[in-house]
Amino acid sequence: VKLARLGEAKIIAEITRGVAEHPDVPVGIGDDCAAVRGVARGMLELLKVDGVVEGIHFDPQTDLRRVGWKAVCRPISDIAAMGGLPKYALLTVAVPAEMDLSQLKALSTGIRRACARHGVTLVGGETSRSPGPLFISVTLTGFVERARCVTRSGGSPGDLLYVTGRLGGSLKGWHLDFAPRVKEARWLTEHFTVKAMTDLSDGLAADLPRLAAASECGFTLQREAIPRNRDCSVEDALSNGEDYELLFAIDSRTAKKMERAWRKRFPRLPLVCIGLLEAKGHGLQHISGRGYDHFA
Amino acid sequence: VKLARLGEAKIIAEITRGVAEHPDVPVGIGDDCAAVRGVARGMLELLKVDGVVEGIHFDPQTDLRRVGWKAVCRPISDIAAMGGLPKYALLTVAVPAEMDLSQLKALSTGIRRACARHGVTLVGGETSRSPGPLFISVTLTGFVERARCVTRSGGSPGDLLYVTGRLGGSLKGWHLDFAPRVKEARWLTEHFTVKAMTDLSDGLAADLPRLAAASECGFTLQREAIPRNRDCSVEDALSNGEDYELLFAIDSRTAKKMERAWRKRFPRLPLVCIGLLEAKGHGLQHISGRGYDHFA
Repeated sequence: VKLARLGEAKIIAEITRGVAEHPDVPVGIGDDCAAVRGVARGMLELLKVDGVVEGIHFDPQTDLRRVGWKAVCRPISDIAAMGGLPKYALLTVAVPAEMDLSQLKALSTGIRRACARHGVTLVGGETSRSPGPLFISVTLTGFVERARCVTRSGGSPGDLLYVTGRLGGSLKGWHLDFAPRVKEARWLTEHFTVKAMTDLSDGLAADLPRLAAASECGFTLQREAIPRNRDCSVEDALSNGEDYELLFAIDSRTAKKMERAWRKRFPRLPLVCIGLLEAKGHGLQHISGRGYDHFA
Repeated sequence: VKLARLGEAKIIAEITRGVAEHPDVPVGIGDDCAAVRGVARGMLELLKVDGVVEGIHFDPQTDLRRVGWKAVCRPISDIAAMGGLPKYALLTVAVPAEMDLSQLKALSTGIRRACARHGVTLVGGETSRSPGPLFISVTLTGFVERARCVTRSGGSPGDLLYVTGRLGGSLKGWHLDFAPRVKEARWLTEHFTVKAMTDLSDGLAADLPRLAAASECGFTLQREAIPRNRDCSVEDALSNGEDYELLFAIDSRTAKKMERAWRKRFPRLPLVCIGLLEAKGHGLQHISGRGYDHFA
């Protein structure tokens, strides 16, 4: 069945299938807005929006279950990078009228799985026809204890820089199936003072200078230390992007203790020191290789 | 200058130009997420997302200042319909690479004006290239006192139905320049018990049955009472959509008093009783004429 024949109400019903009532959501899907209880005292609310576009973030042939998963997990990765937990999602979906119901079902399945896995409740959305590609935008709210909120800007000269996992080669498939590092980031901020953090979405070559600049620091990068995925060059690890790993800065005096505790808690996920923050104007000014720029 | 030559950082800088620091926003634009203070005690948080797509919600020749205005004011209208006030906005913008910087500036101007007019602070967003049409999705958060939150579902048989303003003919231009009825809705919920409310976006023929169904009511509509814009037939007023006026239900015993107070407070904006809610299964079951369905 083509969506053009299905009508808007049935499309929305398909996307919102299985969304249950939630005690913190007095007004959920189906009214003009969602109305939700605010974050608890002592918490900051996190807000993030992120879009994926057919032909840009995924190929037209891609299994839409994976696209739905990716669309939700991208902003979850950002919430993780602030040290927070995701809570509510809202969707904007613009779909070509010639799209088939089975494809919509696949997309919804991926969205639903990603929400369920991460404790996210879908509370609203909007559907429209697209005269061009499939377009999905996901808004996420989340929350974080004030004292555990980590920005990009809290680093200082001398802090050591760590990355989780392995970098590069995401386009071989990983970018559609990745697990955002929520529990790893929560564990880090529970036990240690993480001074600055970001998730690697545009590639280390773009994201590291951005974190350093936000912290008003320079940096030194040990290129050969960068943990790489199989068959990836250092250049790939720097520039491919969409790694969705964490990059963070931590005081050098607590770094060793943190490393030991990490290996106990996450024995299968590498954590590697790739360099350090320096005084502004010192260290590397540019990385050979560059991150992903949508317009470059 | 084409956006393809400008690069993502400059595009973001253009869209976020003039966004100031805000005491309730410890982390604003430029980090992985925005972090904001939660809503005050006694308030519910409102969440809404809404998208506009070139070729669907506006013609390619449209002045993009008006498109930016519309993209922000559409979800504001939904927040008004809940009795709330808007607070934060996040944007997703997918732009064709061949778009010109001057067009982006126009779009940003419209977005900025709509935010400024309604006390909305832009706290985040995401920019991507679009291989097809221009796509803009706006997420809004807002807040409303628990006791003043109005849904579509609180109406009962016998409640009178009112609409603000005049309906029909929005495509002549009004749909790009409308003023969401925020202060009118706030005034209503401050002084009266509004039992159910919605904004008219798909047309009365779609939105009225939806409100009645949510309230588990039937309804009677006095077609000839519907306030119409110049040169509009009753059919136009029922079906054109994008009126962005309020439709609400109020106890018949307070209706007269409300009408008198309204005329003093808003002497230039019509407020007209167009019918009443009935017991389920009574009154009109169908309206001749239909609202707007993106997929019909």
